[in-house]
Amino acid sequence: MPQYTIGLDYGTNSVRALLVSVDTGKEIASSVFQYRHGKAGILLDPRDPDVARQHPRDYLDGAESVIKGVLAQAKNQAGFSPSQVIGLGVDTTGSTPIPVDANGTPLAFYAELDTNLAAMAVLWKDHTGHQEAAEITELAAKIRPEYLKKCGGIYSAEWFWAKILHNARSTPDVFAKAYTWVEHADWLPAVLTDESHPTKLKRCICAAGHKAMFHKDWGGYPDAEFLSQLDERLVKVRATLPDHAYHVGESAGHLCPEWAARTGLTAGIAVSVGAFDAHLGGVGSGITPGALVKNIGTSTCDMMVAPLESGMADIPGLCGIVPESILPGFFGLEAGQSAVGDIFNWFVGEVQPGKLGHVELTAAAEALKPGESGLIALDWHNGNRTVLVDQRLTGGVIGLTLQTTPAELYRAWVEATAFGARVIMERFEEYGQSVERIINCGGIAAKNPMVMQIYADVMGRPVSISGSTQTAALGSAISGAVAAGAFPDFASGMAKMTSLNPRIFTPDPQSQRVYNELYKLYHRLHDAFGVKGESDDLSDVMKKLLALRDEVRNA
Amino acid sequence: MPQYTIGLDYGTNSVRALLVSVDTGKEIASSVFQYRHGKAGILLDPRDPDVARQHPRDYLDGAESVIKGVLAQAKNQAGFSPSQVIGLGVDTTGSTPIPVDANGTPLAFYAELDTNLAAMAVLWKDHTGHQEAAEITELAAKIRPEYLKKCGGIYSAEWFWAKILHNARSTPDVFAKAYTWVEHADWLPAVLTDESHPTKLKRCICAAGHKAMFHKDWGGYPDAEFLSQLDERLVKVRATLPDHAYHVGESAGHLCPEWAARTGLTAGIAVSVGAFDAHLGGVGSGITPGALVKNIGTSTCDMMVAPLESGMADIPGLCGIVPESILPGFFGLEAGQSAVGDIFNWFVGEVQPGKLGHVELTAAAEALKPGESGLIALDWHNGNRTVLVDQRLTGGVIGLTLQTTPAELYRAWVEATAFGARVIMERFEEYGQSVERIINCGGIAAKNPMVMQIYADVMGRPVSISGSTQTAALGSAISGAVAAGAFPDFASGMAKMTSLNPRIFTPDPQSQRVYNELYKLYHRLHDAFGVKGESDDLSDVMKKLLALRDEVRNA
Repeated sequence: MPQYTIGLDYGTNSVRALLVSVDTGKEIASSVFQYRHGKAGILLDPRDPDVARQHPRDYLDGAESVIKGVLAQAKNQAGFSPSQVIGLGVDTTGSTPIPVDANGTPLAFYAELDTNLAAMAVLWKDHTGHQEAAEITELAAKIRPEYLKKCGGIYSAEWFWAKILHNARSTPDVFAKAYTWVEHADWLPAVLTDESHPTKLKRCICAAGHKAMFHKDWGGYPDAEFLSQLDERLVKVRATLPDHAYHVGESAGHLCPEWAARTGLTAGIAVSVGAFDAHLGGVGSGITPGALVKNIGTSTCDMMVAPLESGMADIPGLCGIVPESILPGFFGLEAGQSAVGDIFNWFVGEVQPGKLGHVELTAAAEALKPGESGLIALDWHNGNRTVLVDQRLTGGVIGLTLQTTPAELYRAWVEATAFGARVIMERFEEYGQSVERIINCGGIAAKNPMVMQIYADVMGRPVSISGSTQTAALGSAISGAVAAGAFPDFASGMAKMTSLNPRIFTPDPQSQRVYNELYKLYHRLHDAFGVKGESDDLSDVMKKLLALRDEVRNA
Repeated sequence: MPQYTIGLDYGTNSVRALLVSVDTGKEIASSVFQYRHGKAGILLDPRDPDVARQHPRDYLDGAESVIKGVLAQAKNQAGFSPSQVIGLGVDTTGSTPIPVDANGTPLAFYAELDTNLAAMAVLWKDHTGHQEAAEITELAAKIRPEYLKKCGGIYSAEWFWAKILHNARSTPDVFAKAYTWVEHADWLPAVLTDESHPTKLKRCICAAGHKAMFHKDWGGYPDAEFLSQLDERLVKVRATLPDHAYHVGESAGHLCPEWAARTGLTAGIAVSVGAFDAHLGGVGSGITPGALVKNIGTSTCDMMVAPLESGMADIPGLCGIVPESILPGFFGLEAGQSAVGDIFNWFVGEVQPGKLGHVELTAAAEALKPGESGLIALDWHNGNRTVLVDQRLTGGVIGLTLQTTPAELYRAWVEATAFGARVIMERFEEYGQSVERIINCGGIAAKNPMVMQIYADVMGRPVSISGSTQTAALGSAISGAVAAGAFPDFASGMAKMTSLNPRIFTPDPQSQRVYNELYKLYHRLHDAFGVKGESDDLSDVMKKLLALRDEVRNA
C-alpha cells in the first residue's frame, strides 16, 4: 500500500501544502492559501515602514484549507485514501516569533487584541527592532563575544531577541500580557499535535540556534545576566524557555483529534518538529556534505552540512553554524546574499526601458560573451549578508560607456551575484568545507538557464537544479516521513524522495578563464569598498576591464 | 548709420550665419544650411566606424546659402541695407584639415576624387589616426617632450598631424596629390578673400597652437627631424607651412568680388582670420580673465584667458595653453570634459524607462535634496579629457539600493559632471588662474536651470548664462567687427556686443555644504580609479554616503 506525507510550507504571503509519495517522491497534489489579513498577508503600519506583522489566525485557517485542498485533489486519483497519509512536516519563515499566554494561546486570539499590531506574529522581515539589535550586538561584543561567533558577528533586527526586546520597550502593556514567545515554526506543529502549552511545546534547534543565540556550549539560550543588562523583563521570558531544542525529523507529537477532524487526516499520525523554509528547502534539494545548496529568490540562503564528528571551527562572516539545524547528525551552515532576484527586479522594474522585461533582457544578455561589456558590478543593493555582514554597503557598477546597453547592465548584475556567490563558496572552502557541486533551487534556478550557466562558469563547479520547484514543502514532507518512521534517517529519505533536474550546467573553460580575471577585479572592489583597512591602487581596474573587453570582442 | 557684421559658424552637421548689430549686439537674422553630403553632412565608411569626413563643397554652398539667407531676412527690417554689413568672421570645428593642391584647391574638387573619402576634409571626430596619434605621442615623449606639455601630455587622434600621417600611410596615392593641408578654419576665410593660394593663406594660431603643435618657443610647427622620424613625407608638408600664425580679429583679407557677387555683400569688407567654434563661443560669451567659460553640449570645452604679460606655467592635464588662441593679448587656456550631455542622453535614451524624458527626469531630480540619494557617480563614459587625459577610463556609480530611482540616477550623473567641472576649475586655480565666476553657454545652459544651480552649488561660484544661444556665431561676428576696425580691441567689442542672461545662479550655502562632502568622496574615487600610484582605503565611502543621505533626509 503506497504511503504519503504532507509538507506544509509557510511563506511570506501564503501557505502551501504538498502531498508527496513516500515511495517515489512524486508530488501528488499541491494547494495554496493566501493569508487573509493585511496587504498580501502582511499587517503594515502606514507610519512605520519597518513594521511587518501577521495574524496567527491565518496560519491555522491556512493549514485547514491547504490540507483539505490536497486531499480533495488526490481523492480523484485511483487508489488514494487520506488514511495513507502517515505524517506531516512544517516549515515556516523565521525568525517569526508569536507572543502567547500561559496556555500557549496567541495574544492575537483575544478579542480585544485582534487588531493590535503588538499582539501579532512579528514577521521575519519586520525591522522595528534595529535599535535593539544594535544594542544586543554591542553588549554581546563586550561581555559575551561567543554569542556572536555563531551568527556571523552581528545580531540582526530580524531575529528573536531584538523583536521581543522592541515589543517590551515600545508596547509594554501588550508585552506584559505575554507569558512567552514562540516561533511560528514551533507553534504550528505544537497546535496540530495539541502540544502548544508552554510546558510541553518543543522548540526547534533551527530557530533557536540560528536566531535566538541558543547553543549547548553555553547551556542553551543566552544567560540571565546577559539578558538582564538588556532588560530585566527578558529574564522572565528566558525562564519560560527549555534547555533542550529538537531537530527536524524528531516527532513534535501526533495529530490531535481536533485537527484530524478539521482536515480529514487520520488522528495520531506523526508530525515532525518544524524548521525554517530555507533549511527544509535544503533537505528537499537532497543536501549532502560537499554540496552547496543555494536557494535563490529575491535573496539567497546558501547552505552546507558537515558531519558532527568532523568538528567545526567558527567561520567568520557566516550567518550561523548550528549543530543539526538542517539535518540531524550534521552541522548546518548558513550563509546568504542579501539581494539577488531583487536586483534583477529593481533593474527591470525601476531602471531600464519599460519595453524590456526579464525574458527580453535575458535573451539579449545571453548573446553577450563574458567580459565583452567591460562592466563589473557590486551586488550590495541590500547590503552584504555574507561574508562582510554589513547592511550599510551599497551596490555599484563601473565600466560604463556611452554605448553601454540595458542587456549589458542586466548581465553585469547577474554576474555580480555570481561573484558574490563565489566569495561565499571560497569562504566555506577556506574553512575546510570543500564544495564539489552546487545545487540551486528556487524560482530563478528553474526559470533562467542563463543565470545557471553564469553561476557554473563563475564558480567553476557543476551546477544542478533541484527536481522540485517546491523544495521547502518537499523537505517538510520528507521530515514528516522521517518522523513517521518511514525512513531510518534523512539520507535514505532524501535518496527516495528528492531528485535533480537532468540538465547539469558544466563550467565552460573559455568563459571560466575570462570570469577568473573578472572575479579578481570584483574581489579587489569587494575588499576596497567592503573591508576596513584595505587600501589598493585601483587605477588599473578600468583599463583591465577594457583590455579584457577588447580581447573578447576581437577573439 | 547702424553697422552690422556676420558670424559664420560651421558646426558638425550644418553651418549657421548670424547677422548682428555692431552697436548693440542685437541678433538681427539667423540662417542655417544642412550639409548635403553623407549622413547629416558626414561621409561615413560602413567598414570603419572611425571614419568621419566632409565634402568641402558643402562649406562653400553653405556659406552662400546662409549669407543670402540672413540678408534676405534682414531686408524686411526698416532701414537695413546689405551695404551696412562691414565685416565677417568665421568659426569652424577642428581639427578638420583639408588636403589641397598647389593652388589651394581642395582635392575633393577634382572630378575624379569627388567621392574619394581620402580626398575629403577629415572631420574633428574622425578617429582613423589613433594608431598614428599614439606613435606621435610616443616619439614626442622620447625626443620632444616640450611638444606634449602644451597639449596636456597626449597627442590626440582628432588632431592635425595624426590625420595627415594616417592619410599618408593608408592612401599614399591621394596623399601624393596633396600639396599641403589646410584647416577648415583657415581655408574658409581664405576662399572668401581669394587668398587661398598656399603662399598667401593665413593660418590661425588657434588651430596651429592647439592641434598642430605650433609654438613660438620652438619656431612654429614641429621640426623636420621630429617629423622625419614619423614619416619623411611629413617633412614635405612641413615645408609648405609658414612660421607665423595669426590670431582672430586680424584681417584674413577683404571679401573678393566673386563672393560679393555670390552673396550680395559688398566687395572689400573685412574678413577676420578664423578660429574654432568653442573659442569664438568664449568670445561670444564675453570671456575675461577671472571668468571660466564652459561651453556645455554633448561634451564641454572649458576656457579661460590670462594676460600674456602674466607669464604662464604649463598646467598639467590641460588640452592646451596657446598665446592668443582665444583673444589677442591673452593666453588661451583650454580644458574639457569628454562627455556631459552625452551622458544624460545615454541615460534617457538607452538605460531608463522609455516613459521619462529629460523634462520629466529633471522635474523629479529637482525635487531631490543634494545627498539624499546616497549615490555618487563618475562621469567618464567617454574617458577623461581634463585633468587625467585618459580615454581608457569609464563611468561608474556607487550607492545603489533597491530603492534607487531613475530620477536619482539622472541627478547623480548631473552632479558627477559638476564634480568633474570642479576638478578642472581647481586645476586652473592651483596654477594661479583664479576663477571668480562661471559663464555657461551651449544648449544645456539655456535649457536646464537645475543643471546650472547644481553647477553653482558644487563649484561654489556664481554661474551666469550667456545672453546669446549662438555664442560661437556671435563671437565670429565680433571678430568680423574687430577685423573691420569697428572696435580697437575685443574688450570693447565684447562689451558692446555680448550680454549675460540676467538670472545668476548663486551657490546655496546648505547645498554647498553637502556637495563639499560629496566632492571629497568624488575626488577620492577620481584618484583611486584614475591616478596611478594612488592607494586608498575606500571602506568608509559607502557608509559616508549613507550617513549623509540619512542626515539630509531627516533634516
